[in-house]
Amino acid sequence: MTYRVVAISREFGSGGRTIGQKLAERLNIKCYDSELIQKIAEESGFSKDYVKKEDENKPSYWQTPFFTYNYKATSNQDVIWASQEKIIKDLAKDQPCVIVGRCAEYILRDDPKVLKVFIHADEEKRAQRIVNVYGEKTDSPEKRIRDKDKQRRAYHAYYTETDWADAENYDICLDSGRLGIDKCVNILHDLYKF
Amino acid sequence: MTYRVVAISREFGSGGRTIGQKLAERLNIKCYDSELIQKIAEESGFSKDYVKKEDENKPSYWQTPFFTYNYKATSNQDVIWASQEKIIKDLAKDQPCVIVGRCAEYILRDDPKVLKVFIHADEEKRAQRIVNVYGEKTDSPEKRIRDKDKQRRAYHAYYTETDWADAENYDICLDSGRLGIDKCVNILHDLYKF
Repeated sequence: MTYRVVAISREFGSGGRTIGQKLAERLNIKCYDSELIQKIAEESGFSKDYVKKEDENKPSYWQTPFFTYNYKATSNQDVIWASQEKIIKDLAKDQPCVIVGRCAEYILRDDPKVLKVFIHADEEKRAQRIVNVYGEKTDSPEKRIRDKDKQRRAYHAYYTETDWADAENYDICLDSGRLGIDKCVNILHDLYKF
Repeated sequence: MTYRVVAISREFGSGGRTIGQKLAERLNIKCYDSELIQKIAEESGFSKDYVKKEDENKPSYWQTPFFTYNYKATSNQDVIWASQEKIIKDLAKDQPCVIVGRCAEYILRDDPKVLKVFIHADEEKRAQRIVNVYGEKTDSPEKRIRDKDKQRRAYHAYYTETDWADAENYDICLDSGRLGIDKCVNILHDLYKF
């Protein structure tokens, strides 16, 4: 089995984005991460700043049909999701690439040429990483991680109806804190190539 | 990081046991799977047949303290669990080895020298495997798989208070149906050795 696209879902602070970038570099293919925001903005008509602010956020309760009394209403997040879905499907058709985040592994779940990856690590390792590597300035990096996890998990559950960390949704899940970033890149590189 | 022990948790029909055996053979170390039943029988005092029958089964409700009106009661499964815990810890101390099933990844979770692995595959691939490889004769292999999954998941949740398929409990999770048995063995072999 050879793959065309690698879709990486990742816990905040796990280094999933770095793994995606290093992998893409070694495979000489493109890595889509923050660039997706620009594309989603263009497709949806929202500003780049707005898309960034709402990135991987599910609609809040008062934006749902129950609260708006409009059962045909579409929230801004739903518009962003539809744009994102279209862009990710188009990218995957267009060229071999790595896509980080934005439920790409779910959006492309029926394509056998997509390697679906989940990168995670324990809280302590991720807390160290967001302070030392991302340069986050926070009194409690653990709380920041828990908040971000909660947000991403809720977003994932809302749009995919699956559990974010359920191994069954992925071809391979790796603990980057235990295995190390480079070992994760090597494993994915070998899987992609052979 | 080098490892001493590989603890493999696996979905029924995923080939996790075969992966464990092949890996142990290549590493020239022992693989404990059904042999554990004999050891647990010796340690607990129950017969081998009884241990086999109750294997990876949680106590039923009428065996719990609430139903027995005895809050200090220990179910037979609890005795088996205690024996299993002791045997698995002793094995891991004693020698490098592969241990398949029986929540070994949970029992040994605090040992950094243990590589914690989860092997899974989709229902269709597992149904084919239990009929073609295990020689199971059943009208509905899918139902047999669902029943077995339900039993193992409940057992795992009862004794570990974690979700069986949660990627966060493992160093690596692999879809053997997508990646193939031999590729899974290669990945684990490389991880263990280097």
